[in-house]
Amino acid sequence: MSTPIDKCGAAEMLVAAEDILIITHKNPDGDTLGCGYAMCAALHSLGKRARVVCDSEISVRYEYMYGPIGNCGDFEPKFVLVLDTATLGLMGDSLAPIGASADLCIDHHGTNEGFARFTLCESSAASNAEVVGDVLGEMKVQITPYIANCLYTGVSTDTGCFRYANTTASSHQFAARLFECGCEYIELNRILFETKSRERFKLEQLAIAGMEFALDGKLAFITVTLDMLARAGCSANEVDGITALPRIVEGVEAGVTLRELGNGNWKVSVRTVSLDAARISENFGGGGHKRAAGFECSGSAYDVKCAVTAAVEGMLGA
Amino acid sequence: MSTPIDKCGAAEMLVAAEDILIITHKNPDGDTLGCGYAMCAALHSLGKRARVVCDSEISVRYEYMYGPIGNCGDFEPKFVLVLDTATLGLMGDSLAPIGASADLCIDHHGTNEGFARFTLCESSAASNAEVVGDVLGEMKVQITPYIANCLYTGVSTDTGCFRYANTTASSHQFAARLFECGCEYIELNRILFETKSRERFKLEQLAIAGMEFALDGKLAFITVTLDMLARAGCSANEVDGITALPRIVEGVEAGVTLRELGNGNWKVSVRTVSLDAARISENFGGGGHKRAAGFECSGSAYDVKCAVTAAVEGMLGA
Repeated sequence: MSTPIDKCGAAEMLVAAEDILIITHKNPDGDTLGCGYAMCAALHSLGKRARVVCDSEISVRYEYMYGPIGNCGDFEPKFVLVLDTATLGLMGDSLAPIGASADLCIDHHGTNEGFARFTLCESSAASNAEVVGDVLGEMKVQITPYIANCLYTGVSTDTGCFRYANTTASSHQFAARLFECGCEYIELNRILFETKSRERFKLEQLAIAGMEFALDGKLAFITVTLDMLARAGCSANEVDGITALPRIVEGVEAGVTLRELGNGNWKVSVRTVSLDAARISENFGGGGHKRAAGFECSGSAYDVKCAVTAAVEGMLGA
Repeated sequence: MSTPIDKCGAAEMLVAAEDILIITHKNPDGDTLGCGYAMCAALHSLGKRARVVCDSEISVRYEYMYGPIGNCGDFEPKFVLVLDTATLGLMGDSLAPIGASADLCIDHHGTNEGFARFTLCESSAASNAEVVGDVLGEMKVQITPYIANCLYTGVSTDTGCFRYANTTASSHQFAARLFECGCEYIELNRILFETKSRERFKLEQLAIAGMEFALDGKLAFITVTLDMLARAGCSANEVDGITALPRIVEGVEAGVTLRELGNGNWKVSVRTVSLDAARISENFGGGGHKRAAGFECSGSAYDVKCAVTAAVEGMLGA
């Protein structure tokens, strides 16, 4: 069992620690990496050895974070810190065995399994960067522009640049402090929110060109086939976020994305404005949240769309 | 000549005023309307008569602001307040004569012409809502959720939801305060940033489908013809913002949008990542800012694209 710890206690542990290994989650996003590199730079500034590890390859778009940190030297870790990671499985096969004996985990997922000796988990925080920022404050670390860039990457990506429903007053206050510490938000916003790979753009071109409407424009479908992925030159992990597209059209109550998995199987994502997305998905053995849910099924794309249309029609009529 | 006034002074004027006419600029955006309705509700809360006027029709997307304010009664204005408007011309023909004898103007455009008796102009503010918010504070007005919604509309639309380069630490601090006052940011972000009219979406579909690349992907063109507008069912004023599209693709140094004006004339917008957009446009008799500029010209779309390509190629080589 893990012992809960507060920010002060976590800061004390880190100030006392030496030779720290920092584990981020696999398929890393801006928040886990931002937390990792901010903490790594902070520990270096206190004269400690520390390095960030990740089971997956890190996108070159985050080069401004891993570039300046460089090679952190080879050392045998004496302290294992896990950031923004709720389960051992999310660390990936190469790191889960090390994570299993973690000393401290700092996270913001209410589902954190408590695998570390001590756990600081703030599930009300929109981003883990906000939690890490507070811990760095308790550690009396100076927030350099580099650290501010890392933490801004975390809070801005996890809140969709302050657009998602999870954004809080604290997220904005945190961003304001990072601006004051010299974070280069103009360049970061361009890299993080205004740049798409040509492949990803091509995929959106194809997906948007094929968008279909049903039920008087209240239901919109996007279909992403394996053939479209191939034509765009996109890998499967570049598809994330495309599920937000169909709901963007005015009047759409449910935006549904069909992703072909092969062998006649589909991963279906349901995003709604006012309907219950989880209830729609439960008709097909899936589930999720009120506005974002999904399921897997098999059949032709046409069959899937007909079935979903019937389910949504039933709910609109209700 | 207009007399400069500070926030305190502006607040004193408004607290002393009666029967206030609030003028917003024509082709109104979220900031001018947000300021107008926030101020109107604030003045009502102080027991005063006030109403908001605008030379143009107001988009139904802002119904959450004008709806609750309703009909403010007919009264002969004794005090004219102008918000977020730098020149008399920007008020539109119907209001410029009234604006010419304005008592007070609260603005954030450095280009304000000083047409009002007193002018409060804070050109460092990303949005005029931030200036109005401070004035309401000096007026000791309680920021209700409705007023917070109006002010959030202002700061979020003028900063592109905290993404544009004009965003400041103060913008984020202001947003944090509005969250604490109960602003319904989840619903507002959906309305303001995640919803496009079906016509606008159709236009983007057509524009994106026709995007062309040149100079090894460093230059991207979007062309919006009158025929495309007709096919999408879009009015000309729904085209704004489409100029941001071509620059979004990774590797693009200049994103250029050609808008057909008729009779072989084009309005060309140039958006850049690192090149000087104003210098590119100066080749064609236009101008603007370093990253956003434009010009008008005539000829075939093909000719315009060739000429722009040559100009950009010259600058890339330099």
